[in-house]
Formats: sequence, C-alpha cells, structure tokens
Amino acid sequence: MIANDPYAELERRFGRMSAVNRAGAILNWDRSTMMPEGASEDRADQLATLGVIGHEMMVAPDMADLLSRAEEGKGGLDTWRAANLREMRHAWTHENALPSDLVEARTRASSACEMAWREAKKNRDYKALLPTFTEVVTITKRVGEAKAAALGLSLYDALLDEYEPGGRCRRIDALFAELEAFLPAMLQEVMERQKAAGAVLPLDGPFPVEAQRQLGVEMAKTLGFDFRHGRLDVSAHPFTGGTADDVRITTRYDEKDFARALMGVLHETGHALYEAGLPRDWRRQPVGNARGMVLHESQSLLMEMQACRSDAFIAYATPRMRAAFGKSGPAWEVENVHRIYTRVAPGFIRVDADEVTYPLHIMLRYRIERAVLAGDLALADLPGAWNDGMKELLGIVPPDDAVGCMQDIHWPDGAWGYFPTYTLGALAAAQLFAAARKSVPGLMESIGKGDFAPLLGWLRANVHAKGSVADTDTILSEATGAPLGTAAFKAHLESRYLAA
Amino acid sequence: MIANDPYAELERRFGRMSAVNRAGAILNWDRSTMMPEGASEDRADQLATLGVIGHEMMVAPDMADLLSRAEEGKGGLDTWRAANLREMRHAWTHENALPSDLVEARTRASSACEMAWREAKKNRDYKALLPTFTEVVTITKRVGEAKAAALGLSLYDALLDEYEPGGRCRRIDALFAELEAFLPAMLQEVMERQKAAGAVLPLDGPFPVEAQRQLGVEMAKTLGFDFRHGRLDVSAHPFTGGTADDVRITTRYDEKDFARALMGVLHETGHALYEAGLPRDWRRQPVGNARGMVLHESQSLLMEMQACRSDAFIAYATPRMRAAFGKSGPAWEVENVHRIYTRVAPGFIRVDADEVTYPLHIMLRYRIERAVLAGDLALADLPGAWNDGMKELLGIVPPDDAVGCMQDIHWPDGAWGYFPTYTLGALAAAQLFAAARKSVPGLMESIGKGDFAPLLGWLRANVHAKGSVADTDTILSEATGAPLGTAAFKAHLESRYLAA
Repeated sequence: MIANDPYAELERRFGRMSAVNRAGAILNWDRSTMMPEGASEDRADQLATLGVIGHEMMVAPDMADLLSRAEEGKGGLDTWRAANLREMRHAWTHENALPSDLVEARTRASSACEMAWREAKKNRDYKALLPTFTEVVTITKRVGEAKAAALGLSLYDALLDEYEPGGRCRRIDALFAELEAFLPAMLQEVMERQKAAGAVLPLDGPFPVEAQRQLGVEMAKTLGFDFRHGRLDVSAHPFTGGTADDVRITTRYDEKDFARALMGVLHETGHALYEAGLPRDWRRQPVGNARGMVLHESQSLLMEMQACRSDAFIAYATPRMRAAFGKSGPAWEVENVHRIYTRVAPGFIRVDADEVTYPLHIMLRYRIERAVLAGDLALADLPGAWNDGMKELLGIVPPDDAVGCMQDIHWPDGAWGYFPTYTLGALAAAQLFAAARKSVPGLMESIGKGDFAPLLGWLRANVHAKGSVADTDTILSEATGAPLGTAAFKAHLESRYLAA
Repeated sequence: MIANDPYAELERRFGRMSAVNRAGAILNWDRSTMMPEGASEDRADQLATLGVIGHEMMVAPDMADLLSRAEEGKGGLDTWRAANLREMRHAWTHENALPSDLVEARTRASSACEMAWREAKKNRDYKALLPTFTEVVTITKRVGEAKAAALGLSLYDALLDEYEPGGRCRRIDALFAELEAFLPAMLQEVMERQKAAGAVLPLDGPFPVEAQRQLGVEMAKTLGFDFRHGRLDVSAHPFTGGTADDVRITTRYDEKDFARALMGVLHETGHALYEAGLPRDWRRQPVGNARGMVLHESQSLLMEMQACRSDAFIAYATPRMRAAFGKSGPAWEVENVHRIYTRVAPGFIRVDADEVTYPLHIMLRYRIERAVLAGDLALADLPGAWNDGMKELLGIVPPDDAVGCMQDIHWPDGAWGYFPTYTLGALAAAQLFAAARKSVPGLMESIGKGDFAPLLGWLRANVHAKGSVADTDTILSEATGAPLGTAAFKAHLESRYLAA
C-alpha cells in the first residue's frame, strides 16, 4: 500500500497525528480549566509523551521519501489533495528542521523561563528574569536559524512562518508604516472628541457570576456558537481550545465588571466559529486546519470589535444586559453603553487596549523583538527600549516592568514572531467585515436583530470552509477583492470614532 | 542502550505506554462528564488512535526479544524491578495473544451491541438485542480461546485473568459454594428480624443538589480524598477515572434521595484512595498499577459497606446530614438512619442491592456466563435461565428483561468474566477490615470521630503501596494472615444483621 499510493499513506499518517494533537488539545483545555493543582507534573508527562509521539511520526525516516513520491504524482490529485500535500510538506519542513535535542531544549527553557516570569512579574524584578530569558532568546535564535535554513527565509520570517504561514517582515513593515502614518494623530483626535463629549456613566454592579455566565451563553448562541459541539468554562486566561467538533472556549468573571467577561466570550466565540466552520471532510488533515493566526485573530476581532461594538449590536444587546442584571436608568441607555464599549485611551496593558491603541502596542513589540533577534538590542536594555517606545507611540511610560515589558507571557514562553499577527488580524477583520457588509444586503439590520446567520453564512463560505486550501492573501483577495491592507481598518476607525 | 540494558529499555517503553493510557483515562473521564454530545465521533477517533498507538508499542517486533533478554538478567533485579518485569510479561502476553483484526472486531462488536442494548433495554425487547449480542459472544469466545492458548488457561479463566490477574474458576467455585451454603437462609432470617423491628421512617426530601454535592465533598475529604489530586463531578453512571495523581470520581444526584449519591461518593472514594495510594515511584510502570479488580472493589466496599455503614460512622455522619439539609425529627435520629443504611431486601437490580443479597446477583451472572461461554446455554434461552435463577436465589422474578437479564452493560459491552470480582471484592473487604480492626487499636472509635487516618494508614501500608508487587492472595495473606475466604464476610454479616 505504501509503495502504491504514497499520498494515501500520508493521509493516514497525518490523520493519526491529527488525532494525537486533538487529544492533546482536550488535555490542554482540561489543564487550564478542570485539572487539580497537584496533577501538573503528571499532565506534563502525558502531554510531553503525546508531543514526542507526534514528532516521531512526523520525522519518521521514510517521510521524506513518501512526500517526494507523492509530489511526483501530484498531477493526479484534485485541488484539495494537492493543497493538503503542500501543507504536509510545510508542516514536515518546520518539524524536521529542528534536531530533537533542540526541541527538548526549547521546551525546557520555555518552561523554566515561564516559571521565573511569574515570580519576576509579581516582584516587578526584570533582573531576576534575565538568566532564563537569555537562555530562551539564545535557543529561539538557534530555532530560527535552523528553520531559516530549511525554509530559505530570514530568521524572523522563519519564526513568524510557524504562526502565520507565508507571513513576511517586508509586508508587515509596509503595513505597519501605513498604520504609523495615521494612528498616533488619529488617537489624539479621538481622545479630544471623546473628552469634549463628556464623561460616560459607569455601569453599576455588582454583576453576579451566574448571571454573567448565562448572558455569555445567550450571546455566544446568538453569534452562532453550537453548544452541542462546544462548551464555555472558566480559566485564568481566556482562550479557545479543543477541536473543530468540540470547541472549548473560556472566560473569567469579575463581579465588578461584566464587560471583560462578555467581550471575552464574544472574542473567543469568533475564534470558535472559525474552528467549527472548518471544512468537515478535511478538518483532520493539514489542509483542513485554520489557515494561520492572522485569519484566526481576524475572526475573533470581526465578532468582538467589528460586529459586537457596532451601534446595531449594542442596541440589540443593551436591553438583554439590563434584563440579565435587573438594571435600569441613564447609565443603561443604549447610547451610554455604546460609548463605554467604544472608549479609547492609551493604557499600559495590551490585553486591555481598545482597537485604536492596540496596534501601537503591537508595533512596539514587533520593533523590539526584531531588534533583539537581530542582536541590535541587548536584553539588559530591553526595559529602557520598551519605556522609550511607549512614550513615543502612546505618550505614556509604565511605572514598572510588570505593567511594562514583562506583562506578556509570549516572550518568556518562546513565542517570538507571534505579536504582529494580532494587528494583521485586526486589519483582516476590518477588510472582511467591510466586504461582508457590501455583499450581504441588510447585514447590519440582521445584526441589530440578533440574527447573525447572514454574517456567519458569508464567513463560512468565504473564510471558514477554506481551511488552508489557499494562503491568507489568496483567501482575503477572493473574499474582499484585495490582499491584506490598511484601508478598511482606517475607514472603520474613522467611521466609528471620527464621523460627524 | 537497548543492547546493554533490556530492562531499562522496557521501563522506558512501558513508561511511555502508561502516559498514553493516562492521557486516555482523562479523555474518557471528559467524555462521561464534560464532553458535548456532538463530539462523540471525534472523541472515539482520538481514543481509538491512542489505543492503536499503545497497542503497537506493546506488540512491537522486538518486544519478545527484549522481554526474554531482560528475564535472562533477572537475577540482577531487585524485588520491585523483578515484579515489574513479571507484570510486563503478563501484560504483553495478554495483548500479544490477540491478532489486531480480532481486537478491532471486538471493539466494533461491543459498540454495536452497546448501542442496540440501550434501545432494547428501553423497549424491554431482548429479541432485538440477539443479533449483535450473538456477535459479541462469538467474538468473546474467540478472544478467550486465543488468550487461553497464550496463557495456558481455560477459556473462562483467560477472560477473568484480564480483570483479576491470577483469578481462577476453581477458587471462585469453592468460595461461592461456601456463600451459597449460608446466604439464602441468612437472608430469610435477616428479613424476618427487620420485619419484626418495624418499618423505618423515610428521610423527607427534597435534597438540593448543591447541598448534596457539598456533603459529598465533605465526606470524601473525611475519608481522605485529596482534592489537590482529584475532582468530584457528575456522570450518568458513577465511576472512578483519571490517574493516581489526578483521580476523578463521579456521582449522580437525585433530589428525592440523597443516599444514592452519598453512598456512591463513599464507594468511589474507596476506589480513589487506592489509586492515590499506589506506590509513588512505580505508579507509571505495570508493577505500580492496582493489583486487579478484586482488590479495587475491596477498597470501595471497605469504605462504603464496612466503614461507612458501621454504627460508629453513621453516628458521626447523621448530624452532618441533618446540618447539610437543615433537617430534624425522629426520622433523622441516628438509629433510624442506621436502619435505613443497613436495610436488606431482595430486589431485581444488582446495583441497588444491599450487601446480603448482592452476592446472589453475582452468583446468578457467574453461572450464566460460564454456561453461555461453555456452549451449555443458548442466548435465546438466557432470559428463562435468568428468571429461574432469580427465583431460586432471591425468590423473586423480574417483570421484564429490562430489569432482568438486560439490566447490566457488562455483557453487551464484552466484559465477560468481570462479574465475580464484585463479590470476591466484598469478601476481601470484610477480611481486610477485620484485620485492620484487629491490628489498629481504637480503629472504630477513630472512625466514629470522623478520623480515617488510622484506617487509611493501615490500608496504605498493607494494600495501596503494594501496587502489583505481589498477587492478590499474597497481599491478602500478608495483610490478614490468610488468603481470600468467606469467614470474615460471614462474621461481618452476622455481627451487623443478626447480633442480639
């Protein structure tokens, strides 16, 4: 069988790897939501073993030969199979680029640094982070060099390619330059306008957790989340996990502020709908996976930022919020609620940032991580560079490194090259939403009635069901008429924040 | 390395198989407690893949050679390593006995029959079960024959050996004959006594689920369950799952009757304490697994039946039950509660049976499954044989097969040879508890104060920490001075139900 049909044998093997990865995804979800604290070492051993098993399947000695022979017979494959084979090769090249001692060293360095980071952040002590952080950067560079050689890319592009296949610095530099040309000035203008419009009325709590949870479930359902194929639970950091047939989203509740949990649910629901909409026949093969982090983030931001902070949706949701918490009064009028959900202000913390300031947080990180990886910025000098960049881009300087350069887990965790996908995702979200509004008449009216079917139908057809059959720019071009750009994002911000 | 130290290589491989099995255990738990209904096919694929991966590791072509070479060097191994090697050989022999098409056929037949069984049971239609049931029996016989040949055992012993290594018909026949000699008469005598003592007062509900859950958590903690290494959740059928470091127990709640959930929790806690007490250094190797189903059931029944239905514990628990539900009055006096928890009456349903009638349910199943596997009883005649046996052993005849021969999932699921372990476990529980009382002064006084540390300490040392280092009878003999017998069980029943 292997000799006769190398492609079929590859499908069989990648199907098995998918099952191992999906098992791992559920175990990871359990670790963050259900697992008792004393089981972490046990769980780490399970996950490490599944990781090794998957890795060994991928780098099996005959894989190179199977791939080559399948590629020779590529002419006989239909579009999806040919694309699947391309994705197999891509995944194999990434995984095969790293010798297994480097994979192990990376895992060890990241977990040591992550532990040090929790302490260092708590103590606002960047110096205490330096030893393990230096090790992570050293190993990340070795990983980047190995992948760069295998993929024929620069070091940074090779790292980025793991999160966003086909993502390249040159495109990011150009897009970020366009954003930088208007965003700081726009931020000033928006802030002046909002100041002139006067203070918003705060929503008066407390907001019982159970009422928040029920509202979250109701809203997730409204957007299209199917609870026969998913769950909503609690974790310290919200995420979307599980599998396409079993999507697990999480949030966290604060009785003083229901907006964080609710907006978190809407955001994760966007991710979840993408997973749930992946092509049914291919979701257990590489070509049926989500395309990359740019489109993934575009789906969460499209729901959270584009659709759910629109006038239309806030008008729909506000009476439901009032009902959920038994509230009334001027603070709970639609206009005030809308102003709350579109409030813009520079802050220290990326995850709390509004959509105007968020890209500035990302630009700062992108600059710094490129400089560090290029050897142009020593880790000892990183806090200074961070604070200078915050001053320049957002006009504020964090009081300490815990709310400054140590706020995110990404770098200690070894995720270098990840940050730009957040902002590329925001651009893609704006571009996709604009295209959806153009091609689906009455889209905003439907959203205003809590009917997301027209939007979801368009996303299913134009994004979700494509899986990884084409690259991000091709999917975007087919859906919107153009590759990724900044125009729709700029137009969206102007319309929402600066329209007369 | 393989060439130099075959035993070390085996430890490495069995450690990896353990990690795969432990991952599967968590995924199985999730399936029964958390998983959304639409994910069952996805989960089945994950579990089947992990099963195949574990199976392939076990039957790898060089395993036979590794085992033989390690056994040649056995003289250099200490007790635990030598026992571990013996357990490896045993596990390998079981798994290697079956060709992979038979393993697959068994899985397919069991799941087809299990589905048919749910319908047939609902419709009380045994005939509808027959086609898939016949297939399960045919395949079970093939499995038994293959294992019998590999293990040098009879067909039934070979099946039983999978659940209770070393378990043999000859022992069971002798023990069950002893039970049958006194149980039916004892049952009559107990029932007459209880009738003479008058009716018990029913405990008046409803009992809110959350109050039941809190009481369950409190009582599990009292027995020694460590929630840093485990959870208590809800499932349709209570079970103990997860891993030694992460024990997951479940129950189900009925607002009209809290006793089922509570006694279920105490029962599963007994299982859980065994798992949690397995030898720390060996729990990821075969020798560190629980010895078998007899000792496992002994631990749950020791807690539920021996310790927690004792006068001492009921006196401790009753005020806590009153507090949990805000109750008072004559029904909630200790004596009445104790009478409720030691009520004896023949019934149709095994899982609801008291400890006097339970063995009679098991004897019936043991007789029938041996006759079916020996070809002495046709499946078409099974309902008749069931009803005759019920009449003979318990004096009652079920109104239909749903509460008769179709009540249990075991047979449709392919678990033939499992049933006797329940009653052997009850015998072992009585024997161990009697030994513990003898060797730990003041044991019942401690239990009466809710202090289970002395009991748990004794069980840890004499049962849990032994893992599979010796066989069941050796562990029992070392702990109690005798191999498994019926004397302690008989004495226990006489003391609890027939003492003046």
